[in-house]
Amino acid sequence: MKRRAKTDSLAALGENGLLRLLTSGWKTDSRVLTGVGDDCAVLSGEGKNHFLLFKTDIVVEGIHFTSKARPTEIGRKALARALSDLAAMGAVPLAAVITLGIPANESVSRLSAIYRGMEALAKKYKVNLVGGETTRAAQLFLNVALLGECRGYQPVLRSGARAGDFIFVTGRLGSTQKRHHLVFEPRLAEGQWLARQKLASSLMDLSDGLGADLPRLANASKVSFYLEPKAIPRARGATLKAALNDGEDYELLFTTPASHVKTLKKKWPFATPLHCIGVIRPHGEHSTGPIFAHGFDHFQQR
Amino acid sequence: MKRRAKTDSLAALGENGLLRLLTSGWKTDSRVLTGVGDDCAVLSGEGKNHFLLFKTDIVVEGIHFTSKARPTEIGRKALARALSDLAAMGAVPLAAVITLGIPANESVSRLSAIYRGMEALAKKYKVNLVGGETTRAAQLFLNVALLGECRGYQPVLRSGARAGDFIFVTGRLGSTQKRHHLVFEPRLAEGQWLARQKLASSLMDLSDGLGADLPRLANASKVSFYLEPKAIPRARGATLKAALNDGEDYELLFTTPASHVKTLKKKWPFATPLHCIGVIRPHGEHSTGPIFAHGFDHFQQR
Repeated sequence: MKRRAKTDSLAALGENGLLRLLTSGWKTDSRVLTGVGDDCAVLSGEGKNHFLLFKTDIVVEGIHFTSKARPTEIGRKALARALSDLAAMGAVPLAAVITLGIPANESVSRLSAIYRGMEALAKKYKVNLVGGETTRAAQLFLNVALLGECRGYQPVLRSGARAGDFIFVTGRLGSTQKRHHLVFEPRLAEGQWLARQKLASSLMDLSDGLGADLPRLANASKVSFYLEPKAIPRARGATLKAALNDGEDYELLFTTPASHVKTLKKKWPFATPLHCIGVIRPHGEHSTGPIFAHGFDHFQQR
Repeated sequence: MKRRAKTDSLAALGENGLLRLLTSGWKTDSRVLTGVGDDCAVLSGEGKNHFLLFKTDIVVEGIHFTSKARPTEIGRKALARALSDLAAMGAVPLAAVITLGIPANESVSRLSAIYRGMEALAKKYKVNLVGGETTRAAQLFLNVALLGECRGYQPVLRSGARAGDFIFVTGRLGSTQKRHHLVFEPRLAEGQWLARQKLASSLMDLSDGLGADLPRLANASKVSFYLEPKAIPRARGATLKAALNDGEDYELLFTTPASHVKTLKKKWPFATPLHCIGVIRPHGEHSTGPIFAHGFDHFQQR
């Protein structure tokens, strides 16, 4: 893609447009299997079936959490979001490095609690916290750079969906629990299982809502989709609109070839709910489903 | 180290004290060879002589650069600082992921120029830029998470200096050029050569000034040192105090066993100046040198 005119405004570009613009000149060598555009970058490891996954993710006070959030849950969320991106490719976490931005008058006790929350989740998912730095900043932020791997199997990309594949989501969408975005569990085990069993043709996590994220998966795979509104699993009290539009579900969205659907349903070993919500259609067909009834057409342009 | 009382203030702790406090509960598994406390974290790779190096580093407007800095040089600096940390262990860069914080009313053209500056340096040093994200923020910042490797040789830690080793620096310290901190060259080739030739017993980069960084190397190695003031190479116009105290030299500081000094000087293949500035003394001796004459004693406590 060519660099666009410099006069574009940030608002007109949107986050995805800006990222496309800023990264349009990036070149990578043969060690890089997947660069910008998937949940994580994928680097070749040692031997045919070893891959390194690389990701950076930030939470900023006033944007990703409020000043009233429990400090331990701020630290938890910062790491959980990055872990969800590893889950979204089926990878196993290895190590993380942290950058902490500290505003004037921040209390040491709050920072300690933030780090304790992060440590507890790191322990749970066996993430090595291996380094970091701090800087003065105008607002509190916590950046997590995360390294993961797939050893003996391939990571699942966003771009592998094919016409006829069925579309699945884990869990229930549009949680009305105000703290869901702080305390969700990254679907690491589920993502790793799908990748190891070769049961997903494409995979991503839902961070901006199904209505925004499914079109991204379809674009990456160069396919269209049909979404069945009645099949979308909603969290207790959630409207269809909320299930489509509310971000930060952190559930997995994936596709499975028709020939594998029976095996998937039979073998799925998790308590996490699994729902088929639609089907992938050939490229060029109009995508259909409640996404469009609810006015989210513009997401396809992003 | 035990967690200290929660009532400590940030000012009393300092950056290093805060980092020690925040990371004191971190546990790592056998994949992690070096965690917090060196220039990069070191993870075991595949086989005996393969290591992965992992680092995160940030530049924040108003702290690491002013609003008047050339945008291309802001992007350059963000990546160069992280590369200097790889140089400080003798590693080869592999890939980087970027987090960009964008204040309201930021211009797309300035952001594009920042990324072009980063891209140009990435091309020069063969760094794959593989991903990133953007967030709204109160001030512009650019976080670089960097992955590197040592293949067929070991990275050089801060902790390997032994009594009798000679102390060296590359380049000249205390640059009076205002733009040095934006346009310096990370000493990647020099660091890699030292590591491959096994000529350095310890190695780090000078980011906070020799007067702060040499005591850190000595602390990590559990040794003392004698620094010869007349031997410290000063940039044109720099006072001894500036050469000791000014940060952001981004030169290499390393030690070499006495038995290897002749080989080092004879084989040094770079135009970059090389100066012997002192000698490592046994642990427990009082370190001596102009650091103390200039009132930088307190750095040893950090």
